[in-house]
Amino acid sequence: MHLYLQSVIKGSLRTSLPLYFSVRAMSAVPRISPKSAGRVNSLDQGGTVFAEFTALALAHKAVNLGQGFPTLPIPEFVTKAATDALTQNRLLHQYTRSEGHVRLAKALSAFYEDKLGRSLNPLTEIVTAVGACEAIYSTIQAFINPGDEVILMQPFYDSYPASVTLAGGIPVMVSLRPPSDRSSKTSDDWKLDFDEIRRAIKPGKTKMIIVNNPHNPVGKVFTREELEAIAQIATEYDLLVLADEVYETLVYTDSVAPLIKFASLPGMFERTITVGSVGKMFGVTGWKIGWAVGAPDIIRSIWMVHQYVPFSVVTPLQEATAVCLEQAATNGYFERTRAEYQQLRDKLHTMLSSVGLTPTLPHGGYFILADTSSLPDPADANGNAGAEEVDTDPRRDYRICRFLTKEAGVTAIPPSAFYDPADKEGRDQIAGHLARFAFCKNEEMLEQAGDKLRAYFGDLKGNKAD
Amino acid sequence: MHLYLQSVIKGSLRTSLPLYFSVRAMSAVPRISPKSAGRVNSLDQGGTVFAEFTALALAHKAVNLGQGFPTLPIPEFVTKAATDALTQNRLLHQYTRSEGHVRLAKALSAFYEDKLGRSLNPLTEIVTAVGACEAIYSTIQAFINPGDEVILMQPFYDSYPASVTLAGGIPVMVSLRPPSDRSSKTSDDWKLDFDEIRRAIKPGKTKMIIVNNPHNPVGKVFTREELEAIAQIATEYDLLVLADEVYETLVYTDSVAPLIKFASLPGMFERTITVGSVGKMFGVTGWKIGWAVGAPDIIRSIWMVHQYVPFSVVTPLQEATAVCLEQAATNGYFERTRAEYQQLRDKLHTMLSSVGLTPTLPHGGYFILADTSSLPDPADANGNAGAEEVDTDPRRDYRICRFLTKEAGVTAIPPSAFYDPADKEGRDQIAGHLARFAFCKNEEMLEQAGDKLRAYFGDLKGNKAD
Repeated sequence: MHLYLQSVIKGSLRTSLPLYFSVRAMSAVPRISPKSAGRVNSLDQGGTVFAEFTALALAHKAVNLGQGFPTLPIPEFVTKAATDALTQNRLLHQYTRSEGHVRLAKALSAFYEDKLGRSLNPLTEIVTAVGACEAIYSTIQAFINPGDEVILMQPFYDSYPASVTLAGGIPVMVSLRPPSDRSSKTSDDWKLDFDEIRRAIKPGKTKMIIVNNPHNPVGKVFTREELEAIAQIATEYDLLVLADEVYETLVYTDSVAPLIKFASLPGMFERTITVGSVGKMFGVTGWKIGWAVGAPDIIRSIWMVHQYVPFSVVTPLQEATAVCLEQAATNGYFERTRAEYQQLRDKLHTMLSSVGLTPTLPHGGYFILADTSSLPDPADANGNAGAEEVDTDPRRDYRICRFLTKEAGVTAIPPSAFYDPADKEGRDQIAGHLARFAFCKNEEMLEQAGDKLRAYFGDLKGNKAD
Repeated sequence: MHLYLQSVIKGSLRTSLPLYFSVRAMSAVPRISPKSAGRVNSLDQGGTVFAEFTALALAHKAVNLGQGFPTLPIPEFVTKAATDALTQNRLLHQYTRSEGHVRLAKALSAFYEDKLGRSLNPLTEIVTAVGACEAIYSTIQAFINPGDEVILMQPFYDSYPASVTLAGGIPVMVSLRPPSDRSSKTSDDWKLDFDEIRRAIKPGKTKMIIVNNPHNPVGKVFTREELEAIAQIATEYDLLVLADEVYETLVYTDSVAPLIKFASLPGMFERTITVGSVGKMFGVTGWKIGWAVGAPDIIRSIWMVHQYVPFSVVTPLQEATAVCLEQAATNGYFERTRAEYQQLRDKLHTMLSSVGLTPTLPHGGYFILADTSSLPDPADANGNAGAEEVDTDPRRDYRICRFLTKEAGVTAIPPSAFYDPADKEGRDQIAGHLARFAFCKNEEMLEQAGDKLRAYFGDLKGNKAD
């Protein structure tokens, strides 16, 4: 038996890896019920990477740049829209239309019409959901039969493969790849291989491709040429396209491309499900409101599932989101927020560069991937000075991210969590050398992280000089 | 071809039945996408009975006693808990723990410990959900494999069979039955036939039974003897029990039994999933917060699905629900509300009796089933005086409820919507003579409904006397 697995089973890793999934499944965290359906058994029993690193950050009082939720102040008009909805009309405390609160559906049509270059029917071409997460889940339930294949791009948002698996479908991975010498400067240096996509498609079996633009965690904003190449493949193989564009309002001024809505490309509206969310748009991930936009027959299919999943979405905050969209159309919120995030991005980029964690500048979203090759590997006893135990996790990025949390006091997310565990190339050659840092954090938090990283890396250099 | 279907296909029913499902599927409402997964095709394409009757009520400016959402004022402390959560801590606008906001999980443990007669671990024995609806959906996804059977009691809450179907399972119906001479005075006159349940079970294939207590729409509160008989069957056939107890705080003083939590029966905690909701508990159905309570392995299985359906539940209103529960423990809210609903129940009961719509007094919940046998059938031309067209829907209760909406100006829900369409006995002999009225409405609304019913039935008697 592999030494790593032996250690896990013996429990010797518990101290250094209190929440690592195999350990969790065996000790603190309950097992699933033996009566569970097959679809539950088909999921990773350990839960998400976020659970592990949030707990680890808390245990070590680290500055948590892991999970991507904003810690910035909530704009006054956003809070006011919410408290108004809760106090001005008592019927806003009750169920609203299952397909989506009408005022929100109208505000979303107005928001998207220009961007999509077409008029939208708010009553038939939009369905609201419990965050982008439920929009993605219900879309996949609506279209994926057991055995159907769905093309995902690595690194992926972890709910994509899980949603496909829960529908009985098969996630098939293609990869966004950085230059093989790991010299990427900006997110545009990460490229798709369109022949790889074609090879991954099984005609008649592949039903959908998921395109995340701007891309999490790479931060890539796809160019028109890239999107058109995907559109051509979608047409050729009659694929549905799930366009997860939740970071659509966060594209920076130095991007190689503006945000081009996939559904705005010629012929694509009829086969595209566009997903967005209030969490990303207004920095309120806890409101749990998202939506899918598409042709009436597509939206009707998604709603057929949605009506029995949550039935409807939180009414007062749907009303508030509508008001926020109406006001943001004229109050400069999106422009201001983009500028603010661009400053935060640049601050984190400079800070990571200064300590030798070579960052790739993202053109969109709120994450930076940084190359950690300069760091000693915690699996190597020499590099592990100060840690109580050697981390024998086979994934270098997990070892590094745990080490950074415990030793430097800053938490990042290991990107191999966003790769097929069976993909050794992705896990070792690409993700293994990276860590994902979120910059949707208030300035003090980024500064505190900077202080901690500089202190640690300064110490490290000092130790090395000894 | 059946005359009714012919009319539907020719479109001749459009005027009188603008939202009837077959018509909807063919005209105004979009069809589903031809690319839809099989599970979508397996659902009724028309959507819910609530969509039809809400629209019909609006079109005819009827007093809507159909859908069960409260129109009563929201208590001050409930609104304040929500606005406080939105204004006092900006992190309450962000994602919270996927398994459930910790303060809410703790408040729920405190609320349920006495009732269940055991201590609860808030971190492992509770998962919060997007209303009871998502709790039911995720529970069924977590346990029901394709081909597994689930026992449901007719009349049922319509999300049960749909959730079972979406999981690939098979809903198997047993019935709560009123006396065959339709003489039921109270909801306790509706009885289960335990031999019928035993006959419905296929050992090894039947995996779950759903018990709704207090029962919607009958209003029955099950006695200890009845619950114990179900518990014995669950033990004998090793079934999971989904105890939907969302109306648990609305049991009236004249009930034959208090609310006995199914999971409090000896040996039942280990096989029971208890579902509850803030919508029913605090009269705020639009908050969309519910929960499942159960043994750690059961809750873990449900969470495995839940983490990829909505990921988490609206944070600020989970915080607010926690505060409401904490305050309701001492501010008398539940006692006051139960008394208020009991008065509303009695008011509606008296009003229905006075116009000859013989009501069955419910011991719990906020619906009354009323016998409509005294009404002339709209399918009969003589009884249809004043209606522009004869309603040829084969379901008497649908005809009556449409007629009441259009002619009397009061909307109720036809209970055959809560029966297997193939069950002619349930549809014709039981539901056919009933209509479901909600009394979770402010007093003025009930009075308005009373005025309209009295005016209509007075006119009717006048016409008959002519």
